[in-house]
Amino acid sequence: MRPSGRTAQQVRPITLTRNFTAHAEGSVLVEFGNTKVICTASVEENVPRWLKGKGKGWVTAEYGMLPRATHTRNRREAASGKQGGRTMEIQRLIARSLRAAVDLEALGEQMITVDCDVIQADGGTRTASITGASVALADAINHMIATGKLKSNPMKGHVAAVSVGIYNGEAICDLEYVEDSAADTDMNVVMMEDGKMIEVQGTAEEAPFSHQELLDMLALAQQGINDIIEKQKAALAE
Amino acid sequence: MRPSGRTAQQVRPITLTRNFTAHAEGSVLVEFGNTKVICTASVEENVPRWLKGKGKGWVTAEYGMLPRATHTRNRREAASGKQGGRTMEIQRLIARSLRAAVDLEALGEQMITVDCDVIQADGGTRTASITGASVALADAINHMIATGKLKSNPMKGHVAAVSVGIYNGEAICDLEYVEDSAADTDMNVVMMEDGKMIEVQGTAEEAPFSHQELLDMLALAQQGINDIIEKQKAALAE
Amino acid sequence: MRPSGRTAQQVRPITLTRNFTAHAEGSVLVEFGNTKVICTASVEENVPRWLKGKGKGWVTAEYGMLPRATHTRNRREAASGKQGGRTMEIQRLIARSLRAAVDLEALGEQMITVDCDVIQADGGTRTASITGASVALADAINHMIATGKLKSNPMKGHVAAVSVGIYNGEAICDLEYVEDSAADTDMNVVMMEDGKMIEVQGTAEEAPFSHQELLDMLALAQQGINDIIEKQKAALAE
Amino acid sequence: MRPSGRTAQQVRPITLTRNFTAHAEGSVLVEFGNTKVICTASVEENVPRWLKGKGKGWVTAEYGMLPRATHTRNRREAASGKQGGRTMEIQRLIARSLRAAVDLEALGEQMITVDCDVIQADGGTRTASITGASVALADAINHMIATGKLKSNPMKGHVAAVSVGIYNGEAICDLEYVEDSAADTDMNVVMMEDGKMIEVQGTAEEAPFSHQELLDMLALAQQGINDIIEKQKAALAE
Amino acid sequence: MRPSGRTAQQVRPITLTRNFTAHAEGSVLVEFGNTKVICTASVEENVPRWLKGKGKGWVTAEYGMLPRATHTRNRREAASGKQGGRTMEIQRLIARSLRAAVDLEALGEQMITVDCDVIQADGGTRTASITGASVALADAINHMIATGKLKSNPMKGHVAAVSVGIYNGEAICDLEYVEDSAADTDMNVVMMEDGKMIEVQGTAEEAPFSHQELLDMLALAQQGINDIIEKQKAALAE
Amino acid sequence: MRPSGRTAQQVRPITLTRNFTAHAEGSVLVEFGNTKVICTASVEENVPRWLKGKGKGWVTAEYGMLPRATHTRNRREAASGKQGGRTMEIQRLIARSLRAAVDLEALGEQMITVDCDVIQADGGTRTASITGASVALADAINHMIATGKLKSNPMKGHVAAVSVGIYNGEAICDLEYVEDSAADTDMNVVMMEDGKMIEVQGTAEEAPFSHQELLDMLALAQQGINDIIEKQKAALAE
Repeated sequence: MRPSGRTAQQVRPITLTRNFTAHAEGSVLVEFGNTKVICTASVEENVPRWLKGKGKGWVTAEYGMLPRATHTRNRREAASGKQGGRTMEIQRLIARSLRAAVDLEALGEQMITVDCDVIQADGGTRTASITGASVALADAINHMIATGKLKSNPMKGHVAAVSVGIYNGEAICDLEYVEDSAADTDMNVVMMEDGKMIEVQGTAEEAPFSHQELLDMLALAQQGINDIIEKQKAALAE
Repeated sequence: MRPSGRTAQQVRPITLTRNFTAHAEGSVLVEFGNTKVICTASVEENVPRWLKGKGKGWVTAEYGMLPRATHTRNRREAASGKQGGRTMEIQRLIARSLRAAVDLEALGEQMITVDCDVIQADGGTRTASITGASVALADAINHMIATGKLKSNPMKGHVAAVSVGIYNGEAICDLEYVEDSAADTDMNVVMMEDGKMIEVQGTAEEAPFSHQELLDMLALAQQGINDIIEKQKAALAE
Repeated sequence: MRPSGRTAQQVRPITLTRNFTAHAEGSVLVEFGNTKVICTASVEENVPRWLKGKGKGWVTAEYGMLPRATHTRNRREAASGKQGGRTMEIQRLIARSLRAAVDLEALGEQMITVDCDVIQADGGTRTASITGASVALADAINHMIATGKLKSNPMKGHVAAVSVGIYNGEAICDLEYVEDSAADTDMNVVMMEDGKMIEVQGTAEEAPFSHQELLDMLALAQQGINDIIEKQKAALAE
Repeated sequence: MRPSGRTAQQVRPITLTRNFTAHAEGSVLVEFGNTKVICTASVEENVPRWLKGKGKGWVTAEYGMLPRATHTRNRREAASGKQGGRTMEIQRLIARSLRAAVDLEALGEQMITVDCDVIQADGGTRTASITGASVALADAINHMIATGKLKSNPMKGHVAAVSVGIYNGEAICDLEYVEDSAADTDMNVVMMEDGKMIEVQGTAEEAPFSHQELLDMLALAQQGINDIIEKQKAALAE
Repeated sequence: MRPSGRTAQQVRPITLTRNFTAHAEGSVLVEFGNTKVICTASVEENVPRWLKGKGKGWVTAEYGMLPRATHTRNRREAASGKQGGRTMEIQRLIARSLRAAVDLEALGEQMITVDCDVIQADGGTRTASITGASVALADAINHMIATGKLKSNPMKGHVAAVSVGIYNGEAICDLEYVEDSAADTDMNVVMMEDGKMIEVQGTAEEAPFSHQELLDMLALAQQGINDIIEKQKAALAE
Repeated sequence: MRPSGRTAQQVRPITLTRNFTAHAEGSVLVEFGNTKVICTASVEENVPRWLKGKGKGWVTAEYGMLPRATHTRNRREAASGKQGGRTMEIQRLIARSLRAAVDLEALGEQMITVDCDVIQADGGTRTASITGASVALADAINHMIATGKLKSNPMKGHVAAVSVGIYNGEAICDLEYVEDSAADTDMNVVMMEDGKMIEVQGTAEEAPFSHQELLDMLALAQQGINDIIEKQKAALAE
């Protein structure tokens, strides 16, 4: 049994609060249970230097955690003078996931930066971030269409993510912190709404995993992401 | 007339939401109108190296803004590799203000770090931060008393802050962004609940200010802070 | 009685040595008693990127201390890889104070950088810096007029600064180190020669201060700054 | 057809040159075709601070590329003052992979750092690094046994890695640069010699991938890694 | 007697392996006995900003050591966030030495960067670097001539370097690590093939050196460099 | 003829003002003509970590330039976040030179840090720094003897330095800026008062130098340093 009492395939209660803050073109508070992340999408009318003049846009992402988002306080990265390896790894994952969902040629020479800032952490901050970021990105693109910066929608579909893992010998979906810290294997899966995969990152934390365990985790991820994409669609329909 | 329609002495609607996030010993969302700051107070059972063995505690603060808390996106300080001068100045101000409210000997060799992270900015982020931080600090100290880390309360009283300024030739209280950016003079005042001052920082942004203007601003600040301290007391009484 | 034997309102012996070093357009050694600061004003024929094309100039300042300007050696900021918070706070204060004294439109697209480097510290380094910087700035502007870079003088008047504080329950002016480190409250006041204020920064180091104490300190500051501005005028008349 | 003329499942010629440099306890030059990486394993008789006194050892890794290991020169990371996100991501992957192969309790309070420095890059530097690092680690552990620092071998088996991808709609194994830069999907797989997986990282570079494509890639990876582990065993048997 | 059994004037076996790596315009593995350095010369068709439009080219150099090039592992400079003083000193020496051998006007507005990365250290890494860099530079220039980027050869001659020192009271040439660490004085000499000197850097490690000792060291250096330049010519003739 | 009108062997007017600033154990303003450097020697009763428990002391040095010590303003190193290569090279030279003059065992587990800060530059800042630092060091050691921190003097003699160069085909001594920037070769020589050499650093800026030119420069350096050491002795005798 899971500490949370959830079934193996059950994701946590997920909420997506749009227009959470005032200034960004897209701003979403995403909650996967007790994990809470503010995702804002900011539009700029230029692109990184290496892209200038190529007729293409860019989508990027940054990730951070408030120092006391976690059980004990972490040092503030701005104070220590650099972003840690975990932060870099996560923000690169978010950015790649979002770019896979956007036709960059259709975006034109414009850039969208999505900031994912965790205000409360209870496992799965990167998958919650991708899920919330996709909605913030959709809102920003709608804003660009409404303000004439885009003629048509360059987004190929929703993108969502969930973690799966092997816990007590069994595959489970959407791990919270107590499950994650005790899991043998942790895998993050990012999918488009058509069921195709954008990223699969499985890591043996304690014990290597078999081919069958990988298949079990993938099946749970597919189902969990379907549920999550329904939430995204419902939020955007409001 | 003020853009907001407020009277000269009127502060914005102020809310203080305690227990805003789950992990910190004190966690407060403070709102001064559209300015919103998460203040968390974290307790550690040790002190900075230079204080060790002196039987005294320490209270410090850090300040940050989410990149899109503002009208246009600011570069993430963690990514640029250092905290800017404005950030440093503000977090030093918050820390001094809080320390003035605490008997550090009575705190013993323990440290409280208050993080103030602005999630939405509309002027007055430093005064909102101090105001919210004081409540988060009170909660953290109550937690320390409840868990036996403190026998008595080392806090000397509530501390609150407000900005005042000269706008269109008149002194006004609690400036929001459109007022702040057009003001001739901006002054931040930090007071204890007994009306004594902890910090007074007046800056001529556009035009030097006279002795009388200083007195006018101080009078408004006194009145505004009284109102704010009532909000703090009410929040802590819930 | 003050450790120095001075009366409450008495400033230390103040000297302003112009042309102290050879290369800068303005170069002043300012001494407030044993506090000694080299202030150089450097002229550049361009402005920061964000000001380009706006027809305005810029005045900025940087502050530093030689490692052994103080009783014990401080780590060299260049070696530790960043300027500390105190340094940033001070150089921002100096820069704001100088900018308040200059009509930036009249300066045109030119920049003046004033470097204030403390070679010996005995309290009041920031107020000595502002005082010396104002004279160095005046010399640089005169140099610009003489060399045809300016047609008229964009400086609105002299700017000077002094510290005041509450020491042994009494307001005193121009604190030296032994007074400063024992004072309950420390306030730095920056004024134009017409008596209007540019910056007022009062900090309760040990005990909050009352409205009356603030007024007492301001009165002393006004008088001290008048004395200091006389010294500035005399120096520039040589 | 692949640009290299290889079949889909064929890995490049792989060589593992032990004792490549003189000082390290383990030193291997690994070549996957034209990709060449120097892997050195260094033994230290202490552990990171957070592990002290826990009776456990640690295995970590660092990754770098000579500036001209690539077609055009990259800026030296030591000169730019930080390791890039890609470097961080890769060295964290290498370190996790090696740790999964070692019983850290059996290692005792000792640390092994494996440095993987790419001297020539032609795709697959991270998988070549893991493969070479495993052999360097084995040599370092043998050295520890020979010098009495270890009584028994804490290594659970060889670990090896290979990249697979979808290129021109077909799954291929061990991509070289021209293939990698044109692939729709790139996946890195790290396995133990018993066929269990340690890491699976699949990324849709151009087009999302289907469940079937994932299975195809995994099958190729399994076969490729078997071949590579034979090379490791042969190298260590010399 | 020297630990190596060499005579006082005898340099170590020296090899220069051209085309050591694939991508650089010049790539040389230089070995002075057990000291091994990869030197790559990279050509870029632009110059540093401060040289633009002056019709001159630039030659620069960077130096690094793999963390375990030495007996014990050194911290990776990219990880510690800066290049150490020794690294900076050495790469400046290499760059000056190479620039002295090139007619920068004849190079035109093009830049050559030579990277010297030590993969195994046994004393004399800076002199081996200069020696190998000269050959890599020659190859890069030949490549530029072959590809039409240069019409004539801007190189004024070969440049080579050797260390000399006072060891057990006697001058010796080309010190290896055990000699270097016990020497009273260490001197690095860089010469053109015509016997003229580019750099002479003598340092009293343990005991100041006399005028006669300086002359003795210079004589050995002259002879050693002649031998080394023969090796360079032979390598380039292959 | 030299621009200065000096003869080839003539050094600039040299002054050494002891007790220039108040707090340091040794504080000297050294002037070589228009080059002016403040040298302070600071005593600490501990040593760097790697020397602890070895019964030896340490002497080190740091070097800096005020931003406007030069004709045009240089960026402040503290603001740019690192010391440049030139600074590092110079401070390492100063430190080595001073250590060569001190018996570190006799110093015991104490450290002396000499800061050399250039307030006005006109060529030869490193040689002026070494010359002034030697006097500051002597004063600091005398202070240590007077306060009982040392029983006997660990200094082996005065150390002084001068630059020499080839200018218009002729060797000259103690180059000022206009000479230095036009010289073919620049050499810095550091000597003990007994005439033995500590450092010789000759650099061909424009044209390689011959053996005879090296001898000519050395002869001038010897004579110049003798003159300078007389100044040191005279200053210390006051």
